Amino acid sequence: MASDVEIAQKFKPIPITDISNKLNIKSEYVHPYGRDIAKIDLAALNDKKNTKGKLILVSATTPTPSGEGKTTTTIGLGQAFTQLNESVCLALREPSLGPCLGMKGGATGGGYSQIMPGDKINLHFTGDFHAITSANNLLSAAIDNHIYQGNTLNIDMRQVVWRRVMDMNDRSLRNIVLGLGGKMQGVPREGGFDITAASEVMAMLCLADDAQDLKNRLDKTLIGYSYSGEPIFAKQLQVTGAMMALLRDALQPNLVQSFEGTPAFVHGGPFANIAHGCNSVLATRMAMHHADWTITEAGFGFDLGAEKFFDIKCRIANLDPDAVVLVTTVRALKMHGGKNKKQLEHEDLDALQQGLENLDKHIESVEMFNKHPVVALNRFASDTDAEIALIRAQCIKHNVSFSETTHHADGGKGAIELAKIVMDSVGKSKPFQPLYHLDMPVVEKIRAISKSMYGADDVAFSKQAEKDLLHVEQLGLSDLPICIAKAPSSLSDDPTLHGRPRDFEVTVRSIQINAGAGFLVVLTGNIMRMPGLPKIPAANNIKLLETGIIDGLE
Amino acid sequence: MASDVEIAQKFKPIPITDISNKLNIKSEYVHPYGRDIAKIDLAALNDKKNTKGKLILVSATTPTPSGEGKTTTTIGLGQAFTQLNESVCLALREPSLGPCLGMKGGATGGGYSQIMPGDKINLHFTGDFHAITSANNLLSAAIDNHIYQGNTLNIDMRQVVWRRVMDMNDRSLRNIVLGLGGKMQGVPREGGFDITAASEVMAMLCLADDAQDLKNRLDKTLIGYSYSGEPIFAKQLQVTGAMMALLRDALQPNLVQSFEGTPAFVHGGPFANIAHGCNSVLATRMAMHHADWTITEAGFGFDLGAEKFFDIKCRIANLDPDAVVLVTTVRALKMHGGKNKKQLEHEDLDALQQGLENLDKHIESVEMFNKHPVVALNRFASDTDAEIALIRAQCIKHNVSFSETTHHADGGKGAIELAKIVMDSVGKSKPFQPLYHLDMPVVEKIRAISKSMYGADDVAFSKQAEKDLLHVEQLGLSDLPICIAKAPSSLSDDPTLHGRPRDFEVTVRSIQINAGAGFLVVLTGNIMRMPGLPKIPAANNIKLLETGIIDGLE
Repeated sequence: MASDVEIAQKFKPIPITDISNKLNIKSEYVHPYGRDIAKIDLAALNDKKNTKGKLILVSATTPTPSGEGKTTTTIGLGQAFTQLNESVCLALREPSLGPCLGMKGGATGGGYSQIMPGDKINLHFTGDFHAITSANNLLSAAIDNHIYQGNTLNIDMRQVVWRRVMDMNDRSLRNIVLGLGGKMQGVPREGGFDITAASEVMAMLCLADDAQDLKNRLDKTLIGYSYSGEPIFAKQLQVTGAMMALLRDALQPNLVQSFEGTPAFVHGGPFANIAHGCNSVLATRMAMHHADWTITEAGFGFDLGAEKFFDIKCRIANLDPDAVVLVTTVRALKMHGGKNKKQLEHEDLDALQQGLENLDKHIESVEMFNKHPVVALNRFASDTDAEIALIRAQCIKHNVSFSETTHHADGGKGAIELAKIVMDSVGKSKPFQPLYHLDMPVVEKIRAISKSMYGADDVAFSKQAEKDLLHVEQLGLSDLPICIAKAPSSLSDDPTLHGRPRDFEVTVRSIQINAGAGFLVVLTGNIMRMPGLPKIPAANNIKLLETGIIDGLE
Repeated sequence: MASDVEIAQKFKPIPITDISNKLNIKSEYVHPYGRDIAKIDLAALNDKKNTKGKLILVSATTPTPSGEGKTTTTIGLGQAFTQLNESVCLALREPSLGPCLGMKGGATGGGYSQIMPGDKINLHFTGDFHAITSANNLLSAAIDNHIYQGNTLNIDMRQVVWRRVMDMNDRSLRNIVLGLGGKMQGVPREGGFDITAASEVMAMLCLADDAQDLKNRLDKTLIGYSYSGEPIFAKQLQVTGAMMALLRDALQPNLVQSFEGTPAFVHGGPFANIAHGCNSVLATRMAMHHADWTITEAGFGFDLGAEKFFDIKCRIANLDPDAVVLVTTVRALKMHGGKNKKQLEHEDLDALQQGLENLDKHIESVEMFNKHPVVALNRFASDTDAEIALIRAQCIKHNVSFSETTHHADGGKGAIELAKIVMDSVGKSKPFQPLYHLDMPVVEKIRAISKSMYGADDVAFSKQAEKDLLHVEQLGLSDLPICIAKAPSSLSDDPTLHGRPRDFEVTVRSIQINAGAGFLVVLTGNIMRMPGLPKIPAANNIKLLETGIIDGLE
């Protein structure tokens, strides 16, 4: 099969203004960025709303190095809706530069189910992440400058919780000492960088209703404590107005198209392992406002991405998906059954049978939210009919619908059956119920997620986490929802445990207060909010060809 | 008079494709970024060239806090050419976010001589600086990852010369210890951040002939030394291909327009105090390729900006300006004559007379390059006719042309006389001669600049600088041109000395090898390559209004 870059060469873009016309977005709201990308003015939400707007959530079983194709399936499903002449729009997350250059390569789908132009979307796109980085780091610079210039707020430099960010996998910046060099160079203190996607500014932008809401969130962001233990909020540093100026354009959703011309809003928030990890509320609204069907994604696995999608995003933004798709692959389930990446080419029903319990758990998890999933099997060439039949049988046992898709090789055509099943499933599930009530004690909320979503026996809290809990209580923020940072490659907080881990405890290392975003970030296991580069980074294989084409981003 | 923001409200933009049409740039080369900005494909340089293309350089006397209006005059002059129905294009530097949020506010001119849209240009614009930041920091991450993953290149972590960058005034990042936190978090070493404009990547992008030339420059960038003292170059880290991918779009010049519709390429490189500080060679070429007149700027003062414009940019890119304009103001010259900012409202011929020696020196400096300047007096409302007459008389004494301009209040109309004088002056100056030959010893080149441009008696070299000079020799790079980093507010390297300082030595603190950019950065006095924020940063006054207008960027 042709490579993603070769396929991208065949792409015949529809003018982006024709894409916005398809969605009945007035041209005055369309700001082009290059020829194939546009930002859409938030004022478009004031125009007449499509009242039929239905929302479909695509999530997946626990990801493995063999790849599940959650994003690819989301795009393929959207293209199938287009082929069925339905009014449809995708709502996806923006890729982060860090993993594109690090472990993962690009994140715009693959094969004949890509969003275009992949090179731009994967790299700087419309600059949203850069704007978030700038806004975040302006606040950091203002904090250290405030301390340097006399510290009238009495900020305790040992208790600054606001960290700098960079959209790069740069392990060396996790823990630094800054302000060195003497009296003219700042005040020394410990600090560090997270990756931009994990910035609270990213979360605030993704959860904001509008510009005013974003400003209010920025203002109430906790940045640290004074020497007398009083909380200090961003508003007190007087730069949230400038942060808003930096974020003005980034708040507008980005419109692109898929390989087959399906409209797609791509806006905000990857990384459900270390952040809430959903595309922006505004992008979802913009899609639902203008199309009959909106297809969105939440991952890594359902346990991380979809749990947050429901308990944080849907709860805050008053959304409720009309259908849920769970993507899985034969290869991934065989890995969950104990095989390694090199052992997946041949039929292995035993491994697959064992791995099915990962799928079982995720189906159960979907049902905990009152939803009934459709299982989408993303078929690879090496999959055998017997393997497919085994998964189909398991779905029948669970009484959930099943569809085999070939959208990677065939585009939307390969997901037509899935699309029909998804449409049929609408109306069959009840309103979603969150996993926990906000007024439960924080530890109970964390327990609820860990036991029901991850299958843990219990949760252990470190000394640091217990201290953090005290802060949460003192600030009166115990009623916030929970955003757990956890290894994506396991249902547990131990990245090496595959399948359906049992008899384990989740260890909570620390709890970070994101008062502006409106959730508590719970760090479990050894999860880091700044990734590192692998021994051979993806960047080593990326090249700019003489033709202007970028090679190696797949 | 109306504020810059109020004036911007009155702006009636010409569609950017009409602006590119004015320049006879084919529409296939025009990539819109929003409605009023476009990037122009480098392929446009392959089309038929305008052979009449003339180049005008605008520089200024030594800047003071009262402002000289070098950029404003450049824009006003361009608008005057447009009013005279001449084919003209501006070639300007992009503002840096750091000072916009820090000391200075925006950098897109002012009054009725602005480039538009100022809010976008001043903030993220088309993302060029962010791309440069990303490319720079990818190399940094690759270096530290290489050390962490086994260090097969044997990089001496005490001798890594490649620093991270951020487009922010953040003093606390000048000197840091990174890689802390234990074995899994990197390898501890000393490091730090410069501001993005000072990045060697910025210089390489600004001096590159084309993409291949940029790639070659990136490859030969010195990043540090091995334990055995061998130089290590960026190519060895294997990420220069990915850096090129990140820089692909940033290499294309940005096209905008002035308030009166004069086309302007705004691309690359501010900060002639800590970098070479010129807009990109490609932007200058693009303007000269398509217009009869190209007007460009170099500053802060002539000593810093124009010296580098001639000795670095013109020498490398084979350019030679046809006319040179030297901007000055009554207020600035009175400050050079010993007054402070509060004492400038009333006529003061004595202070002005004393301050004139700053103008004298700059006129002499222009003549050292074989050029004959036109002095442009940027008139303020408080200036008296007697004060203007004094400056005019001084110009007559020097036998240089003089013109009073009111482009800030009147737009292009206020610089019509200047435009006519500038046109007349073309053809009267000889080919430029550089201040030094490349084959002179490095110390002699530094002496030549310090004595002739700054008026120093001599140059003192620190122990560090002497060690650095040894490295330069060992690497066979003694024939590179010199890029001096120096206080902009004085002809000397002591920022507090105004007027025309005499009897001083320039102190060279250290010398940095920019092998890819192709020059040696000579740090003098206490100049920092990462600025700090003032006690009350400009950011504190920047707001996003409900209308979407950004206030406080002036």
